Amino acid sequence: MLRAEASRIMGAVREKRPLVHHITNYVTVNDCANIAICAGAAPVMADAAEEMEEMVSIASALVLNIGTLNERILQSMLLAGRTANRLGIPVLVDPVGAGATTYRSESVQMLLRELDVAVLKGNSGEIASLAGEEALVVGVDSHGMSGDPAEVCQSFAARLGCTVVMTGEVDYISDGERSYVVEGGDPLMESVSGTGCMAATVVAAFCAVEDDRALASASALAVMSTAAEIAAVGAKGPMSFKAALFDALAALTSEGLEGGAALRRTR
Amino acid sequence: MLRAEASRIMGAVREKRPLVHHITNYVTVNDCANIAICAGAAPVMADAAEEMEEMVSIASALVLNIGTLNERILQSMLLAGRTANRLGIPVLVDPVGAGATTYRSESVQMLLRELDVAVLKGNSGEIASLAGEEALVVGVDSHGMSGDPAEVCQSFAARLGCTVVMTGEVDYISDGERSYVVEGGDPLMESVSGTGCMAATVVAAFCAVEDDRALASASALAVMSTAAEIAAVGAKGPMSFKAALFDALAALTSEGLEGGAALRRTR
Amino acid sequence: MLRAEASRIMGAVREKRPLVHHITNYVTVNDCANIAICAGAAPVMADAAEEMEEMVSIASALVLNIGTLNERILQSMLLAGRTANRLGIPVLVDPVGAGATTYRSESVQMLLRELDVAVLKGNSGEIASLAGEEALVVGVDSHGMSGDPAEVCQSFAARLGCTVVMTGEVDYISDGERSYVVEGGDPLMESVSGTGCMAATVVAAFCAVEDDRALASASALAVMSTAAEIAAVGAKGPMSFKAALFDALAALTSEGLEGGAALRRTR
Repeated sequence: MLRAEASRIMGAVREKRPLVHHITNYVTVNDCANIAICAGAAPVMADAAEEMEEMVSIASALVLNIGTLNERILQSMLLAGRTANRLGIPVLVDPVGAGATTYRSESVQMLLRELDVAVLKGNSGEIASLAGEEALVVGVDSHGMSGDPAEVCQSFAARLGCTVVMTGEVDYISDGERSYVVEGGDPLMESVSGTGCMAATVVAAFCAVEDDRALASASALAVMSTAAEIAAVGAKGPMSFKAALFDALAALTSEGLEGGAALRRTR
Repeated sequence: MLRAEASRIMGAVREKRPLVHHITNYVTVNDCANIAICAGAAPVMADAAEEMEEMVSIASALVLNIGTLNERILQSMLLAGRTANRLGIPVLVDPVGAGATTYRSESVQMLLRELDVAVLKGNSGEIASLAGEEALVVGVDSHGMSGDPAEVCQSFAARLGCTVVMTGEVDYISDGERSYVVEGGDPLMESVSGTGCMAATVVAAFCAVEDDRALASASALAVMSTAAEIAAVGAKGPMSFKAALFDALAALTSEGLEGGAALRRTR
Repeated sequence: MLRAEASRIMGAVREKRPLVHHITNYVTVNDCANIAICAGAAPVMADAAEEMEEMVSIASALVLNIGTLNERILQSMLLAGRTANRLGIPVLVDPVGAGATTYRSESVQMLLRELDVAVLKGNSGEIASLAGEEALVVGVDSHGMSGDPAEVCQSFAARLGCTVVMTGEVDYISDGERSYVVEGGDPLMESVSGTGCMAATVVAAFCAVEDDRALASASALAVMSTAAEIAAVGAKGPMSFKAALFDALAALTSEGLEGGAALRRTR
């Protein structure tokens, strides 16, 4: 039944083709643009303060990714986020490398404080670090956490008052009340730079058409993980897997989703 | 006979390997670099004012793409454009997202006013918006226009005194006097981020070796569309299509071009 | 025996997964991130002065690539480089386009003067230009040099007191005392934007785990060239070759390396 919901939201994205505005890093930005299209959404990337309010106002979701942050970009993020808040457009924050440097951690804390964030999506190390848990973050990669991940995700979501998405071998999603896990995907996702950023784009696209952010987020991750499972078949390595991931997402059907990654509600 | 001209210009690019300088967005910049090489040209990307005049002076064409514009970049574009004008190097402006925000529209209008632009290349929504036609631009995507596209393209080119290229399912090219259409290509081009930016690079490369800008532009688009047709055969989705597009362009022969996209003069 | 050394260093990278910090251009940055992973290392990209010291302090190697330089980035490079020097982290400078503009040449000279650089890696035109040899640099592409490349590489390395890596059809590596050449690879590498930047990332990863910089650099290039030879088999053009290059590097075994590119000590 959850997969039927995921399928419904996937269909709504393809039908409505929501515009997802990104202020994101220059490392994986092209992948985010293409994954948005493959998910059925329309991407736009812009970071100049001069056009921020106007650009956000035509978008249906906003992604703020701090992968290659600087002060100019951070100011544009604030401006974009406030505009999105005013207009009721969901804001997703991807705290790339939070915990690795003070600048990243403090910038994310500031965004969480100043903005009404709909979804905070990070890997387990980033989320644990922001939640005040012991975490091992090396650069922008997570190497796990000390606490129980489902518990950390749920309690942090309740504390923040938003949906928290914690990606990893198992993905945890919670809005503080309802919690989900997504199991499946493929280890090759760890061998490709930007799969986390891409997942954020797809989550944002799903949130653009579904007000239940936890359900939308869990559905988006189930869709990504299923596409990854399909893409892994016949992949010869990280890059052939990556190309196949885009193609698999674009071609994913409800039937394919039925046979894919496990999506369960845990609370 | 037009295809023979396109083939001749394609050959001239491969023989002369013109350096195409880009000030462009960070979303699709890697694709522009690689498509330049596959077209037989040499790409360079730089945006610092400190080196702009020197870098432009060794280039054979200049692409100004406003995809992720900011004030620093805009000043470098002006400096680059003026240098190119002084040296007789053709300048191509790609008005990504013009119409979506005032900042983009006004920046492009400023570039068109301050510079002697050889080619203005956009999708139909961008061109229509700049031409003052009713257009529906959502983000950086075009959703058509109200007027007759061939007419809008021709009259806008005559008004601007440059070549206008309007891409879409059918591509329209006009320098105000002579007009061309390119029919063909593949719908998968719409599923890949950056195909418009890549087309601009190839148009610029063709303009670097052929003074007839309208003919060079139409030829470049016929070449791109033909490569797309070849790439679409056997593609499993957007990303396998994209990879094949680069390979098909690099391998395109005069014979392949003969059997490809229709290139017609209409005026 | 040299290949056994290359194999040993390749294994050490995969085992230790060193974090390689990059301040690099926005054209090929995604390729650098993915090639780092395929080489067994972990990439991080950041350019804000606010986090530079902290980010460098957790890295095991630092790449400074001037491909799309500007003043803000150059200041971050200085800060990153000084931090790396203080902590004994090897610094690799990739002088993209040195010789093409005064700004690039002077910026690299400044980095070489202000920092203790472990490896200077460029194509033959860039290195020759920096070494004061007659060189023909067009944009960011090298078109050869006048002097004997092995001699230029060795004497420049001796003069600079660091390892100099000069890539091309044949790669030359020298620390002033010991010199190596790598022969092999595939001409398709010239048809892909960013192979030089990617090679720099792999060299830096190898230097992160091996103190003998010349040996580490030569080993990295032998590994890249061997992966290129494997990738070229069955490639249909530049882009299918590029995808296969990542996959081949990730899958490369000691046995594969034995049958690959020639790695010889020449002095």
